[in-house]
Amino acid sequence: MQTLIKNGHIVTATDDYVADILINDEIIVAIGKNLNVRADKVIDAAGKLVMPGGIDPHVHLDMPFMGTFSSDSYETGTRAALFGGTTSVIDFILQKQGNSLQSAFDEWNGRANGTAYGDYSFHMAVTDFNESTRSEIKNMVDAGVTSFKAFMAYKGALMLDDKQLVGLLEEVKKQGGLVNVHATNGEMIDYLIAKHKSEGKLAPLYHYLSQPEVTEAEASGRFTDLANYTGCPGYIVHLTCEGALNAVRERTQKNQKVFVETCIQYLLLDASLYEQNFEGAKWVMSPPLREKKDQETLWAGINQNLVQVVATDHCPFFWEQKLMGKEDFSKIPNGHPAIENRYELLFSEGVTKGRITPNKFVEVISTNAAKIFGMFPKKGTIAVGSDADIVIFDPNETHTISAKTHHMNVDYSGYEGWQVNGKVKTVLLRGQVAIDNNECLIPKGYGQFIKRGKVKQII
Amino acid sequence: MQTLIKNGHIVTATDDYVADILINDEIIVAIGKNLNVRADKVIDAAGKLVMPGGIDPHVHLDMPFMGTFSSDSYETGTRAALFGGTTSVIDFILQKQGNSLQSAFDEWNGRANGTAYGDYSFHMAVTDFNESTRSEIKNMVDAGVTSFKAFMAYKGALMLDDKQLVGLLEEVKKQGGLVNVHATNGEMIDYLIAKHKSEGKLAPLYHYLSQPEVTEAEASGRFTDLANYTGCPGYIVHLTCEGALNAVRERTQKNQKVFVETCIQYLLLDASLYEQNFEGAKWVMSPPLREKKDQETLWAGINQNLVQVVATDHCPFFWEQKLMGKEDFSKIPNGHPAIENRYELLFSEGVTKGRITPNKFVEVISTNAAKIFGMFPKKGTIAVGSDADIVIFDPNETHTISAKTHHMNVDYSGYEGWQVNGKVKTVLLRGQVAIDNNECLIPKGYGQFIKRGKVKQII
Amino acid sequence: MQTLIKNGHIVTATDDYVADILINDEIIVAIGKNLNVRADKVIDAAGKLVMPGGIDPHVHLDMPFMGTFSSDSYETGTRAALFGGTTSVIDFILQKQGNSLQSAFDEWNGRANGTAYGDYSFHMAVTDFNESTRSEIKNMVDAGVTSFKAFMAYKGALMLDDKQLVGLLEEVKKQGGLVNVHATNGEMIDYLIAKHKSEGKLAPLYHYLSQPEVTEAEASGRFTDLANYTGCPGYIVHLTCEGALNAVRERTQKNQKVFVETCIQYLLLDASLYEQNFEGAKWVMSPPLREKKDQETLWAGINQNLVQVVATDHCPFFWEQKLMGKEDFSKIPNGHPAIENRYELLFSEGVTKGRITPNKFVEVISTNAAKIFGMFPKKGTIAVGSDADIVIFDPNETHTISAKTHHMNVDYSGYEGWQVNGKVKTVLLRGQVAIDNNECLIPKGYGQFIKRGKVKQII
Amino acid sequence: MQTLIKNGHIVTATDDYVADILINDEIIVAIGKNLNVRADKVIDAAGKLVMPGGIDPHVHLDMPFMGTFSSDSYETGTRAALFGGTTSVIDFILQKQGNSLQSAFDEWNGRANGTAYGDYSFHMAVTDFNESTRSEIKNMVDAGVTSFKAFMAYKGALMLDDKQLVGLLEEVKKQGGLVNVHATNGEMIDYLIAKHKSEGKLAPLYHYLSQPEVTEAEASGRFTDLANYTGCPGYIVHLTCEGALNAVRERTQKNQKVFVETCIQYLLLDASLYEQNFEGAKWVMSPPLREKKDQETLWAGINQNLVQVVATDHCPFFWEQKLMGKEDFSKIPNGHPAIENRYELLFSEGVTKGRITPNKFVEVISTNAAKIFGMFPKKGTIAVGSDADIVIFDPNETHTISAKTHHMNVDYSGYEGWQVNGKVKTVLLRGQVAIDNNECLIPKGYGQFIKRGKVKQII
Repeated sequence: MQTLIKNGHIVTATDDYVADILINDEIIVAIGKNLNVRADKVIDAAGKLVMPGGIDPHVHLDMPFMGTFSSDSYETGTRAALFGGTTSVIDFILQKQGNSLQSAFDEWNGRANGTAYGDYSFHMAVTDFNESTRSEIKNMVDAGVTSFKAFMAYKGALMLDDKQLVGLLEEVKKQGGLVNVHATNGEMIDYLIAKHKSEGKLAPLYHYLSQPEVTEAEASGRFTDLANYTGCPGYIVHLTCEGALNAVRERTQKNQKVFVETCIQYLLLDASLYEQNFEGAKWVMSPPLREKKDQETLWAGINQNLVQVVATDHCPFFWEQKLMGKEDFSKIPNGHPAIENRYELLFSEGVTKGRITPNKFVEVISTNAAKIFGMFPKKGTIAVGSDADIVIFDPNETHTISAKTHHMNVDYSGYEGWQVNGKVKTVLLRGQVAIDNNECLIPKGYGQFIKRGKVKQII
Repeated sequence: MQTLIKNGHIVTATDDYVADILINDEIIVAIGKNLNVRADKVIDAAGKLVMPGGIDPHVHLDMPFMGTFSSDSYETGTRAALFGGTTSVIDFILQKQGNSLQSAFDEWNGRANGTAYGDYSFHMAVTDFNESTRSEIKNMVDAGVTSFKAFMAYKGALMLDDKQLVGLLEEVKKQGGLVNVHATNGEMIDYLIAKHKSEGKLAPLYHYLSQPEVTEAEASGRFTDLANYTGCPGYIVHLTCEGALNAVRERTQKNQKVFVETCIQYLLLDASLYEQNFEGAKWVMSPPLREKKDQETLWAGINQNLVQVVATDHCPFFWEQKLMGKEDFSKIPNGHPAIENRYELLFSEGVTKGRITPNKFVEVISTNAAKIFGMFPKKGTIAVGSDADIVIFDPNETHTISAKTHHMNVDYSGYEGWQVNGKVKTVLLRGQVAIDNNECLIPKGYGQFIKRGKVKQII
Repeated sequence: MQTLIKNGHIVTATDDYVADILINDEIIVAIGKNLNVRADKVIDAAGKLVMPGGIDPHVHLDMPFMGTFSSDSYETGTRAALFGGTTSVIDFILQKQGNSLQSAFDEWNGRANGTAYGDYSFHMAVTDFNESTRSEIKNMVDAGVTSFKAFMAYKGALMLDDKQLVGLLEEVKKQGGLVNVHATNGEMIDYLIAKHKSEGKLAPLYHYLSQPEVTEAEASGRFTDLANYTGCPGYIVHLTCEGALNAVRERTQKNQKVFVETCIQYLLLDASLYEQNFEGAKWVMSPPLREKKDQETLWAGINQNLVQVVATDHCPFFWEQKLMGKEDFSKIPNGHPAIENRYELLFSEGVTKGRITPNKFVEVISTNAAKIFGMFPKKGTIAVGSDADIVIFDPNETHTISAKTHHMNVDYSGYEGWQVNGKVKTVLLRGQVAIDNNECLIPKGYGQFIKRGKVKQII
Repeated sequence: MQTLIKNGHIVTATDDYVADILINDEIIVAIGKNLNVRADKVIDAAGKLVMPGGIDPHVHLDMPFMGTFSSDSYETGTRAALFGGTTSVIDFILQKQGNSLQSAFDEWNGRANGTAYGDYSFHMAVTDFNESTRSEIKNMVDAGVTSFKAFMAYKGALMLDDKQLVGLLEEVKKQGGLVNVHATNGEMIDYLIAKHKSEGKLAPLYHYLSQPEVTEAEASGRFTDLANYTGCPGYIVHLTCEGALNAVRERTQKNQKVFVETCIQYLLLDASLYEQNFEGAKWVMSPPLREKKDQETLWAGINQNLVQVVATDHCPFFWEQKLMGKEDFSKIPNGHPAIENRYELLFSEGVTKGRITPNKFVEVISTNAAKIFGMFPKKGTIAVGSDADIVIFDPNETHTISAKTHHMNVDYSGYEGWQVNGKVKTVLLRGQVAIDNNECLIPKGYGQFIKRGKVKQII
């Protein structure tokens, strides 16, 4: 089957031009001026931007957490992602301490396989690094899971100590993978949580005050030091603040490179939201929102190429679930919904407001994640030979975000009432029109597992 | 006329795939798998890399200097550039102190127009900033000369003091341009030259010792501070060393961005070359070659995106001319030939040796210069609608650099005997085959002036 | 003649104890518990602090500036200094461009000799460094003028360019002296002054806005780089801000040491004072007052030993003189009166408020200046063999600063109405009671020239 | 009893003069020129330096470690210290995990009391911080043990995790004490030790390679961050390297202060000593010796006042004991003998070679430790009212260090054959001549426990 997208304004991480795109089944086969072909389907994209489908490398679907599950399944989550222009996601498998990586892989894969609308892959969170785990790393890489997450927080559940972390870095380096890290000083955070609770300070504000900037700056610097020592490629997830970004900047004067991801909320929202009463629970996540100065640093970091990816850490919970922490901030499930909003919000606040170029937008919303995580050039660009994962975008249409109209399985929005400039109009996933006219046109289970390659790209 | 390049491995700053390229007259009109068209000319690129023509934004052709002229004219210089895969150059017009910018523009343009083989543009070196010069900035921008060079050295001939420099930055910012800077502390260098001469230290080694790292680190930091204060985009030419790069790194923690160019020689050669006798005069240039530690810092800076461009500062002189300084290093004409070697040397030492990816190679050899200097997307990429400035490159062919075989108008090479992996096979300039089979196939004067746009791209 | 100070609480830069001090003529000859001697004069210091006389190494008495003279002569200035606990000052001789250092020395010395109440010495401001000046440096060192001031601002009147500055540093290093520097980017300041004036911005506020933090940060870093290159001891006068202090901090990671002086006003006052109308002229000085964040940095810098001296830059003008700039901020004579207030203000705001220890107070108000400038141990401490320059201080007596009661020859105070904790009660200068009970007991001309030694102390 | 020291050249942290010192029993009662008193004992110090007795705040006497004990007891250790000019030491009590602080205090005190020749005090190493330990902190402060040591290494035996460390910092701050820290990343070191052993790398060299610079730089920065967050005064023991010192320098830009101690061996010896065979075991200590660049950084840090104390970490073992690790570097008892050599070595290498002034020598060998640890002005200076702990030192006498002649209870010296300029001639401890003419003149048990005060001095 041949599909032709006519006259769109194509934007990639580098380029910017008007042309037609010809798709044969799942793959882009030609790009040109006035392509003279007879296609089965023709889409008029005149006046629209034509950009790569978004890649969100940081989501948590159907995730067990604090005795409940994040409210979006692979079905609802990847469908909402498509509505918002994101065609691929990478979720985090969580090894259960004491169990094997393989068993966790099977469990996660079992939930995703056959239910996802969009394409998906997995990072493997190694929560128990020992000789047995070490021997499984190679298997995972062979299976296409080439990135491994380490938590420097959540002791007793997810955390690796530094001894395990160095061991993981060395083994992953050997097998050609990459280590993602949640870089906060979990010990210090545990101390502050306990302290605040013992003092009767139980409101969401104290979630924020239990994770001060220094806990993240310290751990980001520490991870960078360790990664550098081993030579393993590193990737800091959800970096939020000036202290942490400067820790990376300073420690990389001697030639190393650590990739940095921030999330859309850290660019747009700030900690003043916690000053309300329990309403602040909507934004209880870890790390918490920071200050306005940190937003400026992160936008600058994107333009300085110190921050390569803007993700979401999508992890939604119903208000009912958030209420578990009504009397105790430490019992509020962590996370907020954003998978559907990222693409449009970053365009509106970034490109429309002149903070980043359209090329940079494509780079951080899609291309860099594809390169860093071994999915390029299958994913992450508009080029001959690549998957036809394409967003047709109207940069001039404005709309308003609301829980009433979003497709995520959650009853509130952290951006309720935000005016957005720019709208995802049509989305193609591997050549199929997945979204058009606010409707989803592909069936449940269309989404495929993306087997990823070894890390070889340096941006 | 239609030209078809078949089956090449196309590399851009972002992408990497195999496809055909269809060119209509000067412009790329389609890219696709097995394009089914009848072309006037078909080039088989199977097994070859197909990359954007190189852009060298730092050359000095036919330049008056120290009572002589650099030995490559626009004719010989741009022709040699084409042999080496560089399709566009930007030269520096030097305002004569006391005279207008327009008169300098006319003089330089007069030399280039009708003689150049390759495409060319100009930076305007403002050497006398006053109210009259200020009023000409807008005219220059309107004429397509949107970048202005300031010298922080060569007092009495080229240097602006900081008062003039701030004035220039403010005016250029207002007119939408960019300020290039030769960032060394000229006062301190003048002191050290005089001191060495008074002590009878006259060998080329003292050229090097008269420009210690601190003279460049200091001035690079100072320029960054001034540019930041005014908000004008800045670009440091021929940055050579760790001290200077760290000065930029530290001063950009507060959100600004200053572009940085290094040159191929600073990545590959080091100051031990000055320890010979007068032979060292071959590499007498300003700034001088530095230490091995600086090379490492520069390679890292490229991968950290702190260094965006690799140029040459091509400014060749015959050995006869170099001999003017036989008895006094300060009389040696500054500069060395490289315009023909940059593309192949950077590929060989960078890509083949695994220091940078092919995408990064394209970025720093071509794309970034095009974007920073307002020539994109006409120049700097392989995309539909862009000029067909294309290099067909064999990454496996090895050859040896020698003055005997190079095309530059100079009787020595700074890289004599270097083995290079990778060879420019065919070069197209605006759709015409300019170089093929080691022959130049276009006539003198084929090269055109590139009228550049205002600075709007941020990388 | 023998004088005995009984039971005082003696504080030096290191020590802190109760004892008697025995003075023979001008010199301290013994310190002990209950010294059993018969003295000509006995002073009961029980309950009082007994500290070294203050040394203010940055004053301008009878200084020609902008067509007028600073209003305190050596007579009135050193007398006021004594009332405020400062027993020695170092003034700045200003070489007239084109004239010799010796002629300037003779002129300044002529004004001081026979008129000063307190002891005094001179720095030599070299405003015209050439071969002739170079040959005089040694003479000055031999005459006891071992510190040389360079201005990086005031082009055409006082400024040295960097070539001259490096030359001065090298010669002074050779002769065993030290270079003081006024470190601001004068070129940039001249640009901003002209710009503000051309825009009709003429109020005192624009004095402040013409000297932004970056002008000082840049020049402080530049001076540190140059001093380091030459190996000459350097001393930055009147450093005011975070940017400048961090420039020194960063550039000294490679082992060098540059001394830093701040002034009392930069610790206590801030730029909000310029937001009034012409009243702000009272604090028009260069550099201008800064922000509250800078005050914190300076107090921290004192405790981190990055700031060694607290001086005044005392340079008073009558309100009538300040009015010269009523219509144009650039015509306001720069400077403010502080010579009498420094000792008490620093004690009150520093020691009483717990920001610094009493030892640190003595260090920065007296000892460090004596060591850095070659007057130690004659001046700057209370020890056997030292000059008996002693302040007997009541830490509990409070009083109010006012132009009505101060002894400086100027009709306003920059600290009018400030409440001060701690009062200078009695001052001895070389064994003589100079101040007691708010009266001056020594005759005009008692003050002596202090011939200073070569720099040999590192703090 | 009255003792008179005649005509010595007295040096304190600030002063430098010639005078007589009169001692009444244990205390200095007068200092003066030609004191006219009749003393019971007169010591002629003409031509000699008279300086405060050394304070070594980092020693391990009779310390249980790796199944053995350090070979110097309080008896032999403090006696050797006196021979080398050190009159007071502070040892480390090690809490046994699971036991109380009080029981450890009793055990250590029991060993010292009645056996020590010199004066002594204790730091309390908290190895098990919990609610019970927390409640004992105040008791320790009341008992005069005001400094608490935390280990960031030696997991399972001594290490606190960061949660405990923050808790300790908060409690100690509340009680007015200070936290000392062994700042190395113990987790990473454990990883590297295990790795090296598994690879059969068992020589002393691998002790060094298991503790790379980054393990110390990282932990020093982390501790500084945590101390700063809590506001508790911090003190990093045995800092050895550039990375660690720069971590402190950078993190203190925001006003905090963390004290830094280095040890004499890190200033003088380097890691090339490990390249021998088992001979390198002599210098197996933690952290290990570093590189020459680190020595330069540490000397500079002393002059920049970033390093306040030079101690020893004296912890000697007989060669027989070192042989425990003949087949496995991780079994070599850590430590080396230095308590007797520190004073003379630092004078010879520091003062004689012109790296530091005599005042700075006194500051880092004695005064600063006294101030930081609450023993001033009783200890650490020569002033009226202070303990007469005095070293009479001949700066011109040279001698050679050898295990054959030293008084430490160990059969090798890490400085065998070193030529030293300057010799301790006579030592007074609380007015008693303890050492004279290479003989010890006081009885065993003369040493007293020094009850220390709360931290209140900032240097």
